[in-house]
Amino acid sequence: WQADELTGSLKLIDQTVLPTQLKHIDGNTVEHIWEAIKQLKVRGAPAIGVAAAYGIVVGLQPLFQPGADVSRGEFDQQLAKVARYLAESRPTAVNLFWAIQRMEQVAKDHPQMSAADLQKRLLVEAQAIETEDRAMCARLGEFGASLLPANSGILTHCNTGGLATAGDGTAFAALAHAHAAGKQIHVYADETRPLLQGARLTMWELMQRGIPCTLITDSMAGQVMKEGRIGAAIVGADRITARGDAANKIGTYSVAVLCHYHKIPFYVSAPSSTFDLTLLEGKSIPIEERVSTEITHPGGVQLAPTGANVYNPAFDFAPAELITAIITEKGIIQPVTEANVRKVLSA
Amino acid sequence: WQADELTGSLKLIDQTVLPTQLKHIDGNTVEHIWEAIKQLKVRGAPAIGVAAAYGIVVGLQPLFQPGADVSRGEFDQQLAKVARYLAESRPTAVNLFWAIQRMEQVAKDHPQMSAADLQKRLLVEAQAIETEDRAMCARLGEFGASLLPANSGILTHCNTGGLATAGDGTAFAALAHAHAAGKQIHVYADETRPLLQGARLTMWELMQRGIPCTLITDSMAGQVMKEGRIGAAIVGADRITARGDAANKIGTYSVAVLCHYHKIPFYVSAPSSTFDLTLLEGKSIPIEERVSTEITHPGGVQLAPTGANVYNPAFDFAPAELITAIITEKGIIQPVTEANVRKVLSA
Repeated sequence: WQADELTGSLKLIDQTVLPTQLKHIDGNTVEHIWEAIKQLKVRGAPAIGVAAAYGIVVGLQPLFQPGADVSRGEFDQQLAKVARYLAESRPTAVNLFWAIQRMEQVAKDHPQMSAADLQKRLLVEAQAIETEDRAMCARLGEFGASLLPANSGILTHCNTGGLATAGDGTAFAALAHAHAAGKQIHVYADETRPLLQGARLTMWELMQRGIPCTLITDSMAGQVMKEGRIGAAIVGADRITARGDAANKIGTYSVAVLCHYHKIPFYVSAPSSTFDLTLLEGKSIPIEERVSTEITHPGGVQLAPTGANVYNPAFDFAPAELITAIITEKGIIQPVTEANVRKVLSA
Repeated sequence: WQADELTGSLKLIDQTVLPTQLKHIDGNTVEHIWEAIKQLKVRGAPAIGVAAAYGIVVGLQPLFQPGADVSRGEFDQQLAKVARYLAESRPTAVNLFWAIQRMEQVAKDHPQMSAADLQKRLLVEAQAIETEDRAMCARLGEFGASLLPANSGILTHCNTGGLATAGDGTAFAALAHAHAAGKQIHVYADETRPLLQGARLTMWELMQRGIPCTLITDSMAGQVMKEGRIGAAIVGADRITARGDAANKIGTYSVAVLCHYHKIPFYVSAPSSTFDLTLLEGKSIPIEERVSTEITHPGGVQLAPTGANVYNPAFDFAPAELITAIITEKGIIQPVTEANVRKVLSA
């Protein structure tokens, strides 16, 4: 975010053109921010939430023309309109709705406030959402780094970095923190087929920060473990159940099994908001199946026969038994049991 | 092969344009066949050997112009020239040299034969090499199919089919045979990054034969096993040691570990010529590392940062402990021990 509540705008990295181009989007209208969310130029649950919060502020700016005297009635009407508009950008993103509702709640909590003061207050709230996310990432980074072995290779899967959050990411924050603390780690990044978030985004973030890193295909994870190159694996999570089963990007389960076979610690790092305590077991988590072209057309080029039958689950889950510890901003859950999950989360 | 020893030619499928195009190459000059081998239009050790044997015959045809009276001296000179030329097409292909030497040996064994008769005899030898390869594939198919469970999903990795051999392939032959025998199998094909032989070639062969099949990314193998979809896995091998450690396409080791964890039988199918009894352990097998662009540019499109560090081993090996049985044309090696390897191979 740059400048004040009336003239400021949100600067975003366009993730769709990484890693070959670094392009910034100037989110100076709510339409630009809507498009960025819609077209996955900004992705990752926490990052989407932060973008939407600032999107509310940007969407209210047109009311405040020079000399205009904006009434609370006009303001609330525009706020409702902008909130509805932004909520339609990605209908399944939980963090999006959460951030928008939090912004609307601020208005409800201050019914007597003037439009101009409320606009100021909403920018403060958006900044608070961002700051809280950064603080959460920092905690995940510290806790995670404390578990990672020094002078060691660390395997990771998918992207969990600064591109997906306002801060240093979740699992990625542990890598960044361990590197900054001089732990001499070398990161092996699974490319993460089909969408290659590891190759495109994680490698880019690692290289940006000067963290020593090597890209491998998902099928090489077992081999690098056998060669003794890996001291620990760390991944993020999309949803974690009460007993600690952790759903994450497809391929995570295989990494967990390979770690188990090679007696390598397997860590999951995720904010406490990722836990869904209404579910006990991972098998209750519905698994999204995505379009077949993600597999048949890598890089947009057809490399499988026309009409090929494809199975494309977007997620799998690592069962609690295969997870050495779950890192949250509230503390480390180890061993991973339902009792420990509930204890750490209620701390 | 079509027509006789003087006018015949070798018809090949151009594997480089599969699966989006089915293009045949007319191997009617030795230069065409040389190019096909060089440019990987024909690949797979047995298939290369067969192509080279026919290449010798084609390369001698220009001697036999209408009315020409070819002397044995001229013939032997041209044979040596063609053999040397073909041997340069792929300098590391063991089967290529083996096939060329076998053709040259025929000439040496028949010093008194006329050029015209020897040309006929060389075509017979090339056909014998092809026939033996087909018979080997058929035996591998029968033995392999006898091990595969009925009404079951079968996982395979890389390509081991008719495109790599003159017959039905090695591991692929077991799938083809089980299907033909009405075993009601459903094949899950790993796409096999980085070069996608599973997506491009195995899926094409499976669909050509009407074998029910589904393409998955390598990272999904664990998930389909956990879902109970897989009753057995079967793969080929590039080299097998005396104790039964089997080197094969990268990712094979991970499949073997995942099978072990899920208590799923893991089979290797390979001709006895694949065994290298001078080596005891898999770790003595040198592992070829290939260019990084295979990983950074899937489908020829750059999808990793410029300058990204890459590790690209072309092979790994499944240790004997993780292999339920090795299928050879001489019989089934089970359990996989050095004693059993030597016993079956010397049968």
